[in-house]
Amino acid sequence: MSRLFRKIHYVEEAKKLFLDKINEIDLCIENVELEQALGRVLAKDIYSKMNVPPFNRAAMDGFAVVAEDTFGASEDNPIELKIIGESVIGKPFEGKLDHGEAVKIHTGAKIPDGANAVIPVEVTEVRDMQLLVFSSVAPNDNVGKIGEDIKEGDLVLKRGVILQPFDLAFLKSIGVTQVPVKCKPIIGVFSCGDELTDDVNEVMEKSGKIIDSNRLMIKTYLKKIGCRVLDYGIVRDNVNELKNVILKAMNETNLLITIGGTSVGEKDYLPLVLDNLGEPGIIIRGITASPGRPLILSIINDFPVISLPGYPVAALIDFLEFAIPIIDKMFGIRGERVLTTVRAKLRKRIPSKPGVRHYVRVRLINVDGELYADPIRITGSGVLSSVVNADGFIVIPEDIEGYEADQLVDVILFRELIGVWNEKDI
Amino acid sequence: MSRLFRKIHYVEEAKKLFLDKINEIDLCIENVELEQALGRVLAKDIYSKMNVPPFNRAAMDGFAVVAEDTFGASEDNPIELKIIGESVIGKPFEGKLDHGEAVKIHTGAKIPDGANAVIPVEVTEVRDMQLLVFSSVAPNDNVGKIGEDIKEGDLVLKRGVILQPFDLAFLKSIGVTQVPVKCKPIIGVFSCGDELTDDVNEVMEKSGKIIDSNRLMIKTYLKKIGCRVLDYGIVRDNVNELKNVILKAMNETNLLITIGGTSVGEKDYLPLVLDNLGEPGIIIRGITASPGRPLILSIINDFPVISLPGYPVAALIDFLEFAIPIIDKMFGIRGERVLTTVRAKLRKRIPSKPGVRHYVRVRLINVDGELYADPIRITGSGVLSSVVNADGFIVIPEDIEGYEADQLVDVILFRELIGVWNEKDI
Repeated sequence: MSRLFRKIHYVEEAKKLFLDKINEIDLCIENVELEQALGRVLAKDIYSKMNVPPFNRAAMDGFAVVAEDTFGASEDNPIELKIIGESVIGKPFEGKLDHGEAVKIHTGAKIPDGANAVIPVEVTEVRDMQLLVFSSVAPNDNVGKIGEDIKEGDLVLKRGVILQPFDLAFLKSIGVTQVPVKCKPIIGVFSCGDELTDDVNEVMEKSGKIIDSNRLMIKTYLKKIGCRVLDYGIVRDNVNELKNVILKAMNETNLLITIGGTSVGEKDYLPLVLDNLGEPGIIIRGITASPGRPLILSIINDFPVISLPGYPVAALIDFLEFAIPIIDKMFGIRGERVLTTVRAKLRKRIPSKPGVRHYVRVRLINVDGELYADPIRITGSGVLSSVVNADGFIVIPEDIEGYEADQLVDVILFRELIGVWNEKDI
Repeated sequence: MSRLFRKIHYVEEAKKLFLDKINEIDLCIENVELEQALGRVLAKDIYSKMNVPPFNRAAMDGFAVVAEDTFGASEDNPIELKIIGESVIGKPFEGKLDHGEAVKIHTGAKIPDGANAVIPVEVTEVRDMQLLVFSSVAPNDNVGKIGEDIKEGDLVLKRGVILQPFDLAFLKSIGVTQVPVKCKPIIGVFSCGDELTDDVNEVMEKSGKIIDSNRLMIKTYLKKIGCRVLDYGIVRDNVNELKNVILKAMNETNLLITIGGTSVGEKDYLPLVLDNLGEPGIIIRGITASPGRPLILSIINDFPVISLPGYPVAALIDFLEFAIPIIDKMFGIRGERVLTTVRAKLRKRIPSKPGVRHYVRVRLINVDGELYADPIRITGSGVLSSVVNADGFIVIPEDIEGYEADQLVDVILFRELIGVWNEKDI
């Protein structure tokens, strides 16, 4: 049982140590229609194939003119031009404008050939088809020049970006119709433990079995962040079974996530297999997280395995802390992921053990217009209802001894909406 | 042109005014497998059909005993019990325990019939098959009682919750296999304007046409938040065409979003139709947002229509500010949506016009370990590249005159990841 006393790692230190050992992997590339590309990861840098604006256009409502014609114009000495037509967005003036002529123009419309400025409507007056101009403009005044926003050939979007609705719209606006995206990473998932079952009836019959809920949680999370999942089901506490399914996953997937069987105990089959299937084996065993301590991170011949604890809340916390940054790095996702947080006042003091990073589930409550975070009383350590009933959690790092009542804290949200539970529900 | 001077509404005031006029609508209900329910809206309250834990279970590793047998036990005066078996999670002890007997038990395993407490392994010693107990326990000590976390019949999840991975796992853990969810709301979308095209080649030929990128942006956003979209394409600036497509949408959808044609100008066809198809017609016309001013919100015989401006950035801002809360209210989504924000220092002063709510796009930059928000210089007002190249935006409310350099501000993120662009890219 000496492993019990083995040094366990601070959370951030463990994360850095493991992330430094993994590299971005090559995923295949597929071309998809823009409408299908939401949430996918851009596989190549995108360069614009056109200028934006694609032509010189009016930046104000007014009249397209030859700037030089207006020189010397003033309130007392207006210059007279002949209106020869109109340029509207979608219906540009087709002819060419000459000295002494003007074309009525709308913001965004194409500047006719021959014109080089727009005179604002406010400093003009129309009499019959004649335009009186009471002020001068310089060449290029009130003209949005071709390529002013984006030039043909400009790098407009970098590989690794997770494509958002406005990225797709932007790509469409510069003439892109299909986009190269990375194939979805394939992630293997299994739960491990003789006590687990997927069959609710086995539990109803009071067999002492436990429903395997973790696997569904991790699978749906992975799908939510854009991964494909290979589900290897429940694996029994048996060295050969574990060995076979891990070898299979090493062939079929980019990354394996196992759940359960990570505690230091009598049936140490999973750690045994992880440490003996290839080099270097287990990198991290145990972190200073509560919940979330019995995390194992391994690399087996370049193949990473994340072994989450079997307690559901611990599995969730470690998934968020470790699996997501690992997935982001392996699959070359650009940028730093930000968890949704809100600032709230603590409703009561939270003590914490030094050297342990606590994840404290809280509800957010509106008290007289101020947002308060109310820590949830936890009965069972592995009970998911404490997450379901929470709005989010507060992290108390290893070097801090608790937070005081009324202190401002950042609450990391479990959900996109808060206040799902009202104060009176509590 | 008197409408130009019509009173426009403050953003929050406009939102409240319109939200107060719309009600939650009835959507049909479908039962789906848990694996398919991610992101769906729960349609009915869920009550637990079982106790959690489903039986009395050990809260520590040790021995299940009759508590009364241990009374009087001490370091000097151990009590001797006979070990008659073992209870493991998934393999409970089948027999009944009697006075003078003990069953070895693991945390989480079922307490055998007859036992009423667990004596921790630390205060025991095993000699042959005999157990020496050096301390006493009271009845129920170290026992997780049946139903302690959740009782059969407890309300465990409320209607209106957007189902997250842990909700699904939690439901599975209490024996639920299918879940009633609301049918996806159907939202109609069209763009309006003679200048718009979906065909990139029309633009390449310098026709002066503009690619309709907004519709794709709004459609994919709606899909992202769990709606079904009916796409009515591009509608020309023509009263009859507009009338027909709006009447069609009133029949086929729960809500209509139109894009473009909302500015006060010469071709006022859309406002005309919106105000004359039914009662009460236009509720809000124009808000104090920049960008985002020419928003129109209408109700036509109980059918809400959101008319977004045609400039892409304005359309996006108004969609986030108005369409999402309207959708949440109409479809009975529980809780208050929180936008992902980070706090950063402003890199330079941002001036703003009093009475106008400014949405300032910024990039987030790491300067010597501190996060700074750097406002983006905008050239064209409708240019989506200013969103694509941004990390998020800062809101300057109507009653504040700009923010100073180095002031701490909340940046609402456009993306889930920040720092997509490095400082050197700028």
